[in-house]
Amino acid sequence: MSDAQPDLAFVNPERAVYRECIVMLSCQFKGTPGYFVPFIWVDNDFTLMRGFVQGFPKKLGRVYLTKLHDLCPKVGGKRAGARMRGILESHGERIVEASMVFTHKAKPEDLPAVKFYLMRHFPSIDDPAKPSVHEISAGKTENAKIGDVWAGKGELKFFDSPFEEAAGFGPIKVTDAFYFSIGMTITGGEVLYSYINE
Amino acid sequence: MSDAQPDLAFVNPERAVYRECIVMLSCQFKGTPGYFVPFIWVDNDFTLMRGFVQGFPKKLGRVYLTKLHDLCPKVGGKRAGARMRGILESHGERIVEASMVFTHKAKPEDLPAVKFYLMRHFPSIDDPAKPSVHEISAGKTENAKIGDVWAGKGELKFFDSPFEEAAGFGPIKVTDAFYFSIGMTITGGEVLYSYINE
Amino acid sequence: MSDAQPDLAFVNPERAVYRECIVMLSCQFKGTPGYFVPFIWVDNDFTLMRGFVQGFPKKLGRVYLTKLHDLCPKVGGKRAGARMRGILESHGERIVEASMVFTHKAKPEDLPAVKFYLMRHFPSIDDPAKPSVHEISAGKTENAKIGDVWAGKGELKFFDSPFEEAAGFGPIKVTDAFYFSIGMTITGGEVLYSYINE
Amino acid sequence: MSDAQPDLAFVNPERAVYRECIVMLSCQFKGTPGYFVPFIWVDNDFTLMRGFVQGFPKKLGRVYLTKLHDLCPKVGGKRAGARMRGILESHGERIVEASMVFTHKAKPEDLPAVKFYLMRHFPSIDDPAKPSVHEISAGKTENAKIGDVWAGKGELKFFDSPFEEAAGFGPIKVTDAFYFSIGMTITGGEVLYSYINE
Repeated sequence: MSDAQPDLAFVNPERAVYRECIVMLSCQFKGTPGYFVPFIWVDNDFTLMRGFVQGFPKKLGRVYLTKLHDLCPKVGGKRAGARMRGILESHGERIVEASMVFTHKAKPEDLPAVKFYLMRHFPSIDDPAKPSVHEISAGKTENAKIGDVWAGKGELKFFDSPFEEAAGFGPIKVTDAFYFSIGMTITGGEVLYSYINE
Repeated sequence: MSDAQPDLAFVNPERAVYRECIVMLSCQFKGTPGYFVPFIWVDNDFTLMRGFVQGFPKKLGRVYLTKLHDLCPKVGGKRAGARMRGILESHGERIVEASMVFTHKAKPEDLPAVKFYLMRHFPSIDDPAKPSVHEISAGKTENAKIGDVWAGKGELKFFDSPFEEAAGFGPIKVTDAFYFSIGMTITGGEVLYSYINE
Repeated sequence: MSDAQPDLAFVNPERAVYRECIVMLSCQFKGTPGYFVPFIWVDNDFTLMRGFVQGFPKKLGRVYLTKLHDLCPKVGGKRAGARMRGILESHGERIVEASMVFTHKAKPEDLPAVKFYLMRHFPSIDDPAKPSVHEISAGKTENAKIGDVWAGKGELKFFDSPFEEAAGFGPIKVTDAFYFSIGMTITGGEVLYSYINE
Repeated sequence: MSDAQPDLAFVNPERAVYRECIVMLSCQFKGTPGYFVPFIWVDNDFTLMRGFVQGFPKKLGRVYLTKLHDLCPKVGGKRAGARMRGILESHGERIVEASMVFTHKAKPEDLPAVKFYLMRHFPSIDDPAKPSVHEISAGKTENAKIGDVWAGKGELKFFDSPFEEAAGFGPIKVTDAFYFSIGMTITGGEVLYSYINE
């Protein structure tokens, strides 16, 4: 939802919802820890373009996710022992599979704090080797609310691919796995460093 | 989820979830009221084929739905005044748009009871005019649980189309509008009447 | 295109085109050779339902195919040495990959003749173990025209899958590979044998 | 196909093909005529991002097109009297419908020459009102080859939409309609004018 179109979730629901698969790498900038995002896939164009402006290198993919629901007789709802899997498919290949067995309810403060260090890169049209924009930015958000947090045991698998850069990562050791809901307002960002004219 | 593959929602989430747009017409059979389904669209093949066996004339479509969530700063959650819209697109056309303004919480017993009278029709291959199967069946379900019921004011629109049978219905007067969650196990059905050899 | 809607390819192009991946097994019925189809995927609903009536066990999938075109500077057109690949993705997995290197132009009479022996199966709703229809049928077509036939060397791969019945076939030895165009009118079929009341 | 991945059309066909619907407005820059592109839809991410870098404001959509083929008994091939329609659907709505009746073969030199004047716009992250890049560029291509040109009578319709900027254009008078194939290599572009620091 943007301020410019506050009714969008009602008028065009398909333009107000998307699914995402994001890979975040722990890093730091001038001593402050945060995350860099080398790979991220979404399933709608508005978020793809917004992400490109922010510095997320978004590509298109389809994300499938186990639906847990208290009223479903066979699957059931969120509870200790519940199992959930998220699958990313892109260009006709399964790329990522992340699985989790719920063990216990957790709290928002158990989650790692997320600060994004993003790479804004926009090539020049005259010479692609000399970018018009090439800078590190940090994302800004407001109104972040987190709820329904569960901790569990996780598994993560990157599949082989003849083409996908994120293919075949491994071996992977999963240290923590969380399920949670988050809502927030993205308000922009700030430039931390520019590679141009350096 | 089927008994044959109880882990399917975990192993292949995309084969255990679908969205649906259903048109139900009030009718009765030998004095017992129920609903006949002339039009129904889904977005996955397993439900399309199961429906065909049951007597639902399913076609493929994409269903978009407003996502209400307490943590979303701009849209918010289910509450009096919340607005939700469902949109059906099929063969590159918007076919149906159903909108609702939530007015108050309601109870499962406020919802109309649903009994399906379905038309099972399977053509013969020698002569399409003489079906191999042509019968009225009733659906059977177990473990039905209903929750999170809201009542409201609704609007319903069928769009024009050069091709779609369900196009252009109108004028339509909406008498009731409900939002709710339901879970159940589909256990089969029973034949009520056969047109073959009559 | 059906006789009932002769303008469909113009009025609704998306309802008149589909892509398919078909597995055909050599068999014979009372001494006459033909093909049985255990697996077949398509990407549109009209062909899925028509196939179900004919006895093709169609499921949904996405089929991707190399586009060869004389005007494309990097890929080029059909010619000796041209390479083409078809990929089937279904339920978020790559299922089949068929590759071919064109070696020489061929003739329609070089292609294997295709006669389909199909399994029409429609469960009863009272007892799924007792089908309402269970019969072997043969397809009927008219106006078949074949053109643009190329022979080549082929490779075929079925991928692993936790779910897909057609997964992991192998080892496979490819004896022939062909590219061709075919047009025809499907006129129905005939029942060769019924398992009901046998 | 890019020089970086010359085998892509074979290795990943789905990453080497896309469909497009483009709106081009006649304009001129310093006396030289060309076209500006206010609206353009594609169905794959690689072309969406490349377009964004070039200055095409691409969005996602699905493009459906009548398939004419000499071997199809009911539709037939390209010929005087053949009818073709292209349909654009985006965010669950039919946006554009372009129809054509073929009248006669034509020549590449009958087509309007295409020179693109494109708007490269990349917001700053600190202040969206002050773009980091805002310039007019011209596209560069090589190896352009045109073939299979047909002229005809056309119709063009933009549908209503509560959201789409390109909605409801009209009345429209179609002066020419062409079908043709084109192949080329996109080699980059050049900046003609920058709005920054002006």
